[in-house]
Amino acid sequence: MRRALVTALEWRGDHLEIIDQTALPSRFLLLPLRTVAEVVAAIRRLAIRGAPALGVCAAFAMVLALDDPPPATAAEARDRLASAAGQIGGARPTAVNLSWAAERVAAAASPGGTPGEIRQLALAEAERIRDADRESCRAIGEAARAELTGAARLMTTCNAGRLASAGIGTALAVVYARAEVGEPVSVLACETRPLLQGARLTAWELAEAGIPVTLIPDGAAGAALASGRVDAVIVGCDRVAANGDTANKVGTFPLATAARATGIPFYVAGPLASFDLGTVTGADIVIEERPAAEVRCLGGVAVAAEVDVWNPAFDVTPADLITAFITEAGVLRPPFGQAIARTLADAHR
Amino acid sequence: MRRALVTALEWRGDHLEIIDQTALPSRFLLLPLRTVAEVVAAIRRLAIRGAPALGVCAAFAMVLALDDPPPATAAEARDRLASAAGQIGGARPTAVNLSWAAERVAAAASPGGTPGEIRQLALAEAERIRDADRESCRAIGEAARAELTGAARLMTTCNAGRLASAGIGTALAVVYARAEVGEPVSVLACETRPLLQGARLTAWELAEAGIPVTLIPDGAAGAALASGRVDAVIVGCDRVAANGDTANKVGTFPLATAARATGIPFYVAGPLASFDLGTVTGADIVIEERPAAEVRCLGGVAVAAEVDVWNPAFDVTPADLITAFITEAGVLRPPFGQAIARTLADAHR
Repeated sequence: MRRALVTALEWRGDHLEIIDQTALPSRFLLLPLRTVAEVVAAIRRLAIRGAPALGVCAAFAMVLALDDPPPATAAEARDRLASAAGQIGGARPTAVNLSWAAERVAAAASPGGTPGEIRQLALAEAERIRDADRESCRAIGEAARAELTGAARLMTTCNAGRLASAGIGTALAVVYARAEVGEPVSVLACETRPLLQGARLTAWELAEAGIPVTLIPDGAAGAALASGRVDAVIVGCDRVAANGDTANKVGTFPLATAARATGIPFYVAGPLASFDLGTVTGADIVIEERPAAEVRCLGGVAVAAEVDVWNPAFDVTPADLITAFITEAGVLRPPFGQAIARTLADAHR
Repeated sequence: MRRALVTALEWRGDHLEIIDQTALPSRFLLLPLRTVAEVVAAIRRLAIRGAPALGVCAAFAMVLALDDPPPATAAEARDRLASAAGQIGGARPTAVNLSWAAERVAAAASPGGTPGEIRQLALAEAERIRDADRESCRAIGEAARAELTGAARLMTTCNAGRLASAGIGTALAVVYARAEVGEPVSVLACETRPLLQGARLTAWELAEAGIPVTLIPDGAAGAALASGRVDAVIVGCDRVAANGDTANKVGTFPLATAARATGIPFYVAGPLASFDLGTVTGADIVIEERPAAEVRCLGGVAVAAEVDVWNPAFDVTPADLITAFITEAGVLRPPFGQAIARTLADAHR
């Protein structure tokens, strides 16, 4: 039985509509975003998250910058786009997709001779970015399905699924691709403290799709890997450096060390848009720190003593712990520096 | 400034008094336990936990087995002790200290000729077990202080402190020993999902003692280790096999793999009572699985989708990831099989 599948965000002609992911799984709320400020606020409070979805969101936010009221001149339109790109790119520091998408829309719209033409070009580019993301997800799913033949029991952390993209996700793309053709697949989802994206989002979207999913506390990942419950780990990525060092949701790095210790392959799935040749190694990636309240509270309940908290949003997994990257351009294998440079060069040709 | 320090449990002549650890940190409740059944129930719902505290609790529960009403004959007293030892030993399957302490009390009390003599011998043995635990904690603290010279910034998970013992704890003993003599010390405490013993107990008891503590989500341990915030990791243990494989709170194993990957020393602190020569390797350790509700809910609030949950209470850290064991008999170094056998033989001489 196939069910209706969720979509993280939709362009509605004059506004962007997103699922408010902070309300899941208890409430399913659709949230209209009509201005750049609303998009930036939604991104900041993680109502929408996930690198690919953020890129698409950023692209449509650029269109919103040109509405209500429309700019009087082409110069004003270009100024608005430049200003919006700055705001959007700064909404969250680690996700490279935000500024990448905003700048791509600004560049595509720039040749327009009138405000109307500029908006038309911006919208066309935003739609191209969204469609390319959908197509990337599909291609990542197919590449992972070919790579992971026989690996039916997958572990993941955070949410790199439908809720993190405009399509079927990155890490979870292989799960939907398998389910689509009736191949066996099941998922062990790490709950992903502090914000529980695994428990609230991954478990929810997989259950909605009728895919077997088992939730575990983050700390139980080691025991799950050691006990033969997992054929492969597959995670998403927020930014990949030129050497393959990968920033992703905090907890990914210790998961990779446990996978290595237990001999379980560890895959990173993501679009080429998440690879950043300008970032030489993981040491150059700025890691966002988030509020202490996220750790002190759980589901709105205070769960900790009133002490200092350190709450980094991401960590960096060194390239040598990664078995391979799975992208829309296929599987990238070590040595990653060469593979990444060659693949990006081919993609931009 | 020295503050009054907490004690996890006290014998009050006719009952055992414990801090109800499920109520911390929001409420400080003292709970009287008057029967074996009450002790077993308190252990099962984790109102008291931590391997050394469980041993002391089990020892005094054996005394409670002889009260209210007192047995009529010595034979009945011995029957009660045998029955109580069975109930207590089965309260939680992984902690070897429960049956170890119960059986020690039964053996010590057995020679008594009357019910009164048997109770007297049982009580004396329970008090010896408690005093020995206090002394063990003190000795572990001193051994760790000598071993960890210069390692002022310690990371730990779960709670192996005052709340887990009759004394100053095992993993945290070094923290109190340092603070006692005015040496610098600070702690990064992993929150320890699902039951948040790090957030609720470790952070609370260290803050009560005026010791600097910073709370992190379990998944942030890797980032903390990689970013130079930690000089050494030190954890407790629930059971150590003859080869040094160590069962401890779930999450310990991935923490050990992350410590190895970042070159940070990883210590296990515990009394010799937690070492079990009858367990050959970690593969022989039975791992308790706990209810799904611990992961799905917190404070009555659902924090996850309604999916399957796997919730093991412990994991096994292979001996080769452990830098050294710190015990009341000193520091045990690799090869651990020899060191453990020799140390236990010396202790039993």
